[in-house]
Amino acid sequence: MDCTLKNIADALIKSYHEVGGINRIDCGNLPSKRKIAAICEQLLRLLFPGYHDEEPVASDELEMVTNERIAELVQQFEVEIAKSLRLRDADTIGDDVRTEAHRMVCTFLSELPRLREVLRTDVVAAYEGDPAAKNFDEITLAYPCIEAIAIQRVAHVLYRMDLPLIPRIMTEWVHSLTGIDIHPGAEIGTHFFIDHGTGVVIGETCVIGNHVKLYHGVTLGARSFPKDENGRVVKGNKRHPNVEDKVTIYPNATVLGGQTTIGKSSTVGANVFLRQSVPAGSFVSNEAEYLRVINKSTGEILHEFSDTPAI
Amino acid sequence: MDCTLKNIADALIKSYHEVGGINRIDCGNLPSKRKIAAICEQLLRLLFPGYHDEEPVASDELEMVTNERIAELVQQFEVEIAKSLRLRDADTIGDDVRTEAHRMVCTFLSELPRLREVLRTDVVAAYEGDPAAKNFDEITLAYPCIEAIAIQRVAHVLYRMDLPLIPRIMTEWVHSLTGIDIHPGAEIGTHFFIDHGTGVVIGETCVIGNHVKLYHGVTLGARSFPKDENGRVVKGNKRHPNVEDKVTIYPNATVLGGQTTIGKSSTVGANVFLRQSVPAGSFVSNEAEYLRVINKSTGEILHEFSDTPAI
Amino acid sequence: MDCTLKNIADALIKSYHEVGGINRIDCGNLPSKRKIAAICEQLLRLLFPGYHDEEPVASDELEMVTNERIAELVQQFEVEIAKSLRLRDADTIGDDVRTEAHRMVCTFLSELPRLREVLRTDVVAAYEGDPAAKNFDEITLAYPCIEAIAIQRVAHVLYRMDLPLIPRIMTEWVHSLTGIDIHPGAEIGTHFFIDHGTGVVIGETCVIGNHVKLYHGVTLGARSFPKDENGRVVKGNKRHPNVEDKVTIYPNATVLGGQTTIGKSSTVGANVFLRQSVPAGSFVSNEAEYLRVINKSTGEILHEFSDTPAI
Repeated sequence: MDCTLKNIADALIKSYHEVGGINRIDCGNLPSKRKIAAICEQLLRLLFPGYHDEEPVASDELEMVTNERIAELVQQFEVEIAKSLRLRDADTIGDDVRTEAHRMVCTFLSELPRLREVLRTDVVAAYEGDPAAKNFDEITLAYPCIEAIAIQRVAHVLYRMDLPLIPRIMTEWVHSLTGIDIHPGAEIGTHFFIDHGTGVVIGETCVIGNHVKLYHGVTLGARSFPKDENGRVVKGNKRHPNVEDKVTIYPNATVLGGQTTIGKSSTVGANVFLRQSVPAGSFVSNEAEYLRVINKSTGEILHEFSDTPAI
Repeated sequence: MDCTLKNIADALIKSYHEVGGINRIDCGNLPSKRKIAAICEQLLRLLFPGYHDEEPVASDELEMVTNERIAELVQQFEVEIAKSLRLRDADTIGDDVRTEAHRMVCTFLSELPRLREVLRTDVVAAYEGDPAAKNFDEITLAYPCIEAIAIQRVAHVLYRMDLPLIPRIMTEWVHSLTGIDIHPGAEIGTHFFIDHGTGVVIGETCVIGNHVKLYHGVTLGARSFPKDENGRVVKGNKRHPNVEDKVTIYPNATVLGGQTTIGKSSTVGANVFLRQSVPAGSFVSNEAEYLRVINKSTGEILHEFSDTPAI
Repeated sequence: MDCTLKNIADALIKSYHEVGGINRIDCGNLPSKRKIAAICEQLLRLLFPGYHDEEPVASDELEMVTNERIAELVQQFEVEIAKSLRLRDADTIGDDVRTEAHRMVCTFLSELPRLREVLRTDVVAAYEGDPAAKNFDEITLAYPCIEAIAIQRVAHVLYRMDLPLIPRIMTEWVHSLTGIDIHPGAEIGTHFFIDHGTGVVIGETCVIGNHVKLYHGVTLGARSFPKDENGRVVKGNKRHPNVEDKVTIYPNATVLGGQTTIGKSSTVGANVFLRQSVPAGSFVSNEAEYLRVINKSTGEILHEFSDTPAI
């Protein structure tokens, strides 16, 4: 190594000693993003057998294949969960952590059959809600919303078990793949469909009912945050909306605030910016969205109209 | 395997038997997402030789390299197309499917020279439309819109050949990479440019002319859908807009409906929400988009103005 | 190879000879996207040691590990930089290019300690700005904005060294992962935070101060471009806004133009479309954003209100 590179390395090592907070040296390892990504892919194979597999799955091999997959998943996931638990409780000694990690992975895996029932309702909702959907196979295999909601439902189980870091790594993995950013904390009912998906943001304390349909670019977010006496945002309170059963929210609408409830069977129009509750059966639209059409050559105004959607 | 894991596996196997619609067991395999992704990458190398290659391509090796690539691609693609054809016609026996798959892959590959001519116009359009574009190399190598439109044009050929599933897997692959969601069914003319791209949605029955330029976040979508007597959305009709030659649509505009036509040489402003046709040469903008500027300390209104773009 | 495939290959080779501009045959190789992606991942490991590693990093191995990583990175990066330099100056002979590439990679790596100081301020800004952020580890490991800004800050150093292509390949790599599209040319101060991120676009000539916070879907873009006498867009002038210290811009706001300055400590509301400067301490919102709430059954107007945010 030439002396320039040696100087560069020395400067960087000096920086590792001086610039804290973004190093992890001499401490327990963090869960690995790549391993969590591999675990997410294994979970998708377990949840939707035959869709993410290279080879066909035959019924006379199903038991063997499933047992093998679970054994493999448990082995890998325990290691990552143990790393995560050491972050939560630094004093816990090694053996206990591994036992607790095993217990957690078993509790988590026991939830998969229930999640499969819910995910089936999501596939049904996509089929019924999208005129372009040809069949269940296309949806289960290719629709980004199915990956996004499957991983969020998995991450939500781990979030409720108070496991640090891993749930968020999971949802950010699928956010990267799909452009759909659902916090692991969000509570989401059955028959949930997100069409297209890119740009959707669903915050940590959202509560979403059954048969809810969102389009791309919808934000269910927080209003500006209360700050404490040091000017820091207060963490942990209810900050994101409630969306009741059978609500549809059109592209790029923004609904904000922990006290905001969209009542049952309501529709929120495209581009609406809403921070107040609306009762059941409402249709919310931008009233004053007047459009002007001008002839580019003459400057003549051809047409002015409000393109507010009809109910 | 300990008894807890055995119980977990048994519960999951039970779920595979009871929760239908999201399993594929004991039936022909589906096209593999990963194999289709690899095929898309091979197609990008064939379409843009030298851009996606690890080693330089020399002219005296060009014939050999191209022959090898086509042979390899045909072999892999035939397998996936055969899987897809078995979904379309379950009664077709194995040998016929393979013959038909070979015929389809040959027909498809015969289109590549024509697609290259069109893709060259897309690169030209990017160079002419983006002041930040330094040269053709930068565009061909790094611009997400080139990947997105190349794969959509490829998928559209397969869509017109009535091949199930694979076209959509292809466009969702590139949607995941680029945030650009163009349905394989959309018909798109020459010199097509999408700047930035994230959040663009172009629906199945869109018809787009030549020299069209879109910015990020533009939706060319469907209005609310007619439903049949069972309350299900009707599939298959013309649902998405027509965009004529030389139209520019600015960021986050939304144009909806199968009867909506944006006339030749028109411009649609940022954030416009439009569900009606406009004639050739139109400039469409939000008329009533008044902005208010307040001094945060005093509450004084400094300025109120409409920032409607000039023509 | 059967004769059909031979015909297909011949047609494609003919196209390589006839359709220019999207081939690179018989010329120096371009930087490889995959190699640049691998280099970006190595840089993230060097910038945030312990976060992107499979194994824990111990302090008594830190010197050895860092030296090894730098040696490996230099070797790989030199090759790609040399390819890139040959594009800039085709006449430069091979040996000189390699020397220049080595010099550039050393200059670049000398900047890493300074970048680490700035990136630490970005992690602090995320922690202070997001109520959902649990701790620094979660942000450094999982937040997409940290990857996006780390790679943009790295690419900006190379952009200022006038290295072609590689900076843009880097930012498009992270754009694909995060949905955040920041041009390598943008100048960005300390304590920069982008929440959620999908759909953010920041143009080449933006100048952004310290303590700036953006939400998803924010565009800092160009107005329509001046064209030269041939009708081509003029390249290279100042086209994108200035955003001064302590500005917050809410989701899906669009700020355009090289002469537009958002004054210090201002706030720009969600969905605002702004092409004029505003003074320090401003709050900018859509004044006329009236919402209409209708009862879907009766058609009765329940409520009309402006949901313009309070200061």
